[in-house]
Amino acid sequence: MTQLASFKALEKKLAAYQYVLNVVGWDSSTEAPKGAFKRRADMQSIISQEAFELWTSDEYRELLEALLNDSSLSELDQKSLQKAHKALSKVNQIPADEYAAYNKLLTLAQRTWEDAKANDDYESFKPTLGKIIETQKKLIAYRGETAEPYNVLLDDFEEGMTMEKYDAFFDVIRKDLVPFVQAVLINRPEKPAFIDRHFPKAGQKAFVEYLNEVFDYDLDKGLLKESVHPFTWNTHPSDVRYTVRYLEDFVFSSIFAGIHELGHATYEMGIDEALNDTRLKGGTSMGIHESQSRFYENVIGRSKAFWEVHYPKLKSLFPDALKDVDVDTFYLGINWVEQSFIRVEADELTYPLHIMIRYECERAIFNEGLSLDELPDVWNQKVKDYLSLTVKKDTDGLLQDVHWSGGAFGYFPTYALGSAYAAQIYYSMRKELDLDAVIKANDIPKINAWLKDKIHRFGKRKSPEEVLLEVTGEPFDAAYYIRYLKEKYSPLYLK
Amino acid sequence: MTQLASFKALEKKLAAYQYVLNVVGWDSSTEAPKGAFKRRADMQSIISQEAFELWTSDEYRELLEALLNDSSLSELDQKSLQKAHKALSKVNQIPADEYAAYNKLLTLAQRTWEDAKANDDYESFKPTLGKIIETQKKLIAYRGETAEPYNVLLDDFEEGMTMEKYDAFFDVIRKDLVPFVQAVLINRPEKPAFIDRHFPKAGQKAFVEYLNEVFDYDLDKGLLKESVHPFTWNTHPSDVRYTVRYLEDFVFSSIFAGIHELGHATYEMGIDEALNDTRLKGGTSMGIHESQSRFYENVIGRSKAFWEVHYPKLKSLFPDALKDVDVDTFYLGINWVEQSFIRVEADELTYPLHIMIRYECERAIFNEGLSLDELPDVWNQKVKDYLSLTVKKDTDGLLQDVHWSGGAFGYFPTYALGSAYAAQIYYSMRKELDLDAVIKANDIPKINAWLKDKIHRFGKRKSPEEVLLEVTGEPFDAAYYIRYLKEKYSPLYLK
Repeated sequence: MTQLASFKALEKKLAAYQYVLNVVGWDSSTEAPKGAFKRRADMQSIISQEAFELWTSDEYRELLEALLNDSSLSELDQKSLQKAHKALSKVNQIPADEYAAYNKLLTLAQRTWEDAKANDDYESFKPTLGKIIETQKKLIAYRGETAEPYNVLLDDFEEGMTMEKYDAFFDVIRKDLVPFVQAVLINRPEKPAFIDRHFPKAGQKAFVEYLNEVFDYDLDKGLLKESVHPFTWNTHPSDVRYTVRYLEDFVFSSIFAGIHELGHATYEMGIDEALNDTRLKGGTSMGIHESQSRFYENVIGRSKAFWEVHYPKLKSLFPDALKDVDVDTFYLGINWVEQSFIRVEADELTYPLHIMIRYECERAIFNEGLSLDELPDVWNQKVKDYLSLTVKKDTDGLLQDVHWSGGAFGYFPTYALGSAYAAQIYYSMRKELDLDAVIKANDIPKINAWLKDKIHRFGKRKSPEEVLLEVTGEPFDAAYYIRYLKEKYSPLYLK
Repeated sequence: MTQLASFKALEKKLAAYQYVLNVVGWDSSTEAPKGAFKRRADMQSIISQEAFELWTSDEYRELLEALLNDSSLSELDQKSLQKAHKALSKVNQIPADEYAAYNKLLTLAQRTWEDAKANDDYESFKPTLGKIIETQKKLIAYRGETAEPYNVLLDDFEEGMTMEKYDAFFDVIRKDLVPFVQAVLINRPEKPAFIDRHFPKAGQKAFVEYLNEVFDYDLDKGLLKESVHPFTWNTHPSDVRYTVRYLEDFVFSSIFAGIHELGHATYEMGIDEALNDTRLKGGTSMGIHESQSRFYENVIGRSKAFWEVHYPKLKSLFPDALKDVDVDTFYLGINWVEQSFIRVEADELTYPLHIMIRYECERAIFNEGLSLDELPDVWNQKVKDYLSLTVKKDTDGLLQDVHWSGGAFGYFPTYALGSAYAAQIYYSMRKELDLDAVIKANDIPKINAWLKDKIHRFGKRKSPEEVLLEVTGEPFDAAYYIRYLKEKYSPLYLK
């Protein structure tokens, strides 16, 4: 076997470990009995450890290093090797016992956070959170990174992003969006009453199945299921599943989480199969992934054009709840703007403000020495500044999200970035497609084809920056996001 | 680490591999998208190979051999080591490439058999079947077994069983049961019409959920799901799931497959947790396992007492289909005897005749040189002799079961043995419990407790022979089976 073939065999073995662990994760997130938790954790940790040992073995590293600068290899192989090298360099300097201890800390932190959230008890979570942050900093130092720690984390979640770039992005949000949101809030009409009505689960399920057809989701390679939190799951373009949940008192949850996850799923299904056994498989970044889900959810799914076509179907499934609701009222309802404490319940317009709060807090923790004692006050002040709300309990504040208990610092800003990317992509697409007409013709496959051709099929062959530059002809520009939001929400609220 | 601790760590690692492969299997049997088949096969084979290499490694074998005769170890450890040694000796003499080739043959054989069955084309399956049998014989030879090949296979599926013992068992069936079945068939009243009526799925689902309560199935450690073929799946006493299917034109399928699988599941859930990380975990044999499922399904589930309690519930779920059906008619319906071609559709009384056909064919193939050219005629003649039916197509004959395409020769007879064990256990239980009264009092947990105390908790600590001897005070005796069947079916048909 050539060195390249040996290396590829190891990569495939690692993919197989990842595959089985993914399936265990899917099972655990969707249906595994509660009581099986302990045994599963045991078994997962053994298999993860096996995979980790293989990944950080001398054999793997030596093959990788021998091949890394071999310019006789194909461009695809070279890029894949570079990705592999970058990934490995994140862990292979970390002593195995410290890495294992960190993973154990995160497992326990999950429980600690859950309890703290349930009991509104930040103090009980604070020491664990402190340890996670401390360990994160230590692990970054092992990697020999010279960049500032928070920049390292930002780049981990979105290659190429830095505090400088995010600062500029959020400056625009702070300057242009915060006042716009305030104007919208002041000018709101009465809240459409149907939002809080009862929508039986069977009808919701039927509608999400209908959406599968509308968005051309291939059930031969996919699966729709229920879970507590909606998510997309994939191991391969031939196996891309997603989940929703059905809240009978909040029908938007299944509809828009469904469309959102369909956006993620369509991306993964569209990636070139030739990348399967390389490090270039999968979506290129969190931000670009989120741009696809937000494009589906907000640009398509919350558009007037979309509901002009599909509202009759929805109405037929909920003749009681929607009896007296016309499509204009429905359109207002699905774009209803409201200050809220909880990020995952936020509307399209206030959502980035929630993200800004998190970005600024994380930045301050990692870069400005903000202490965890001060954190609640800082968080709550920002909620006041941006959302004009007073946090009364930490469960509605800094305890609400799971991310930090999982050590995921630097992740949040990709959510807002994704929405902003989506807006920039939207204006490019409009130059080539009459988007409203396409949506009204119920021809989503045409949009899918455009996205696949320009974005999906490349997987990680292109960096997020390259994707944006090549699709839109420009680097990232937050102005498109503001423009998109104003063009959409002004006619709704500021007429 | 002591040698014992090192060995146990390896065993746990093997258990973890088995765990993840089991979860992948569950996913694949219940919901994985069709199109994911190819990728999954790839990934599974890599992980199976990893596990196999670990299992057949020098390290594992050397530790095992060093510990095998160490009488200072606990009885449990010694027994576990013996089991491990027996299991390893089945494969470690087989050259790795031949073993891999055999597994590949079986994977392909599955498809070949499916196609042959769909097209009623035995000839297209015959060469593959021939290769499987030939390879089986070769693999047995590698194991250095001196016993006759079919005896080796019989022992693989039911420790301690031989042709001599099975011959004696089936002689009783042939002599006593075949004429009894014929008498029953001649004396049948009119077939209850409700059997073929329509039973909506929602009601069936509700009833199986009701059965979960009746049989005290712990949903904190279990899960009920749909699949094409009902089965029980488990990796650990805290994770024991089962499936049913809902046929709207055959309600007995979900009810009795459900109760059957609950019998398997209750066994697995009741095994002592102390055995978890040993080779003594899990049910002790196919036959004893089947005795538990058949006891649930037939002794309890098809009893008059059971339906005197639960028929009103069923009737309330199917007011149309059961409107004019009293409990006596229902009881006759669920114990309706009928000659049929298909084993899995057979009633309790004719079922063992189907098994006898298979046993005699397998025995003839492995021990008497029966050729695959002659096999269809031999099979069909036996169907004529035992069931008075003329096989018109092989799909209804020797192509109906999946087992042979999976290399599972020697498996079938455990099904009949399980029913016979169940009968023998039944007469023992009756000495201590007034079974009818317990069932009428809807106190299945009392039965579960008896079974757990006498059978379940021991897992593989006791061999099937030991279980039977200790529970019933006697070795296996087929006479109990005939007695049970006659006592049950005479009043129904020969009054």
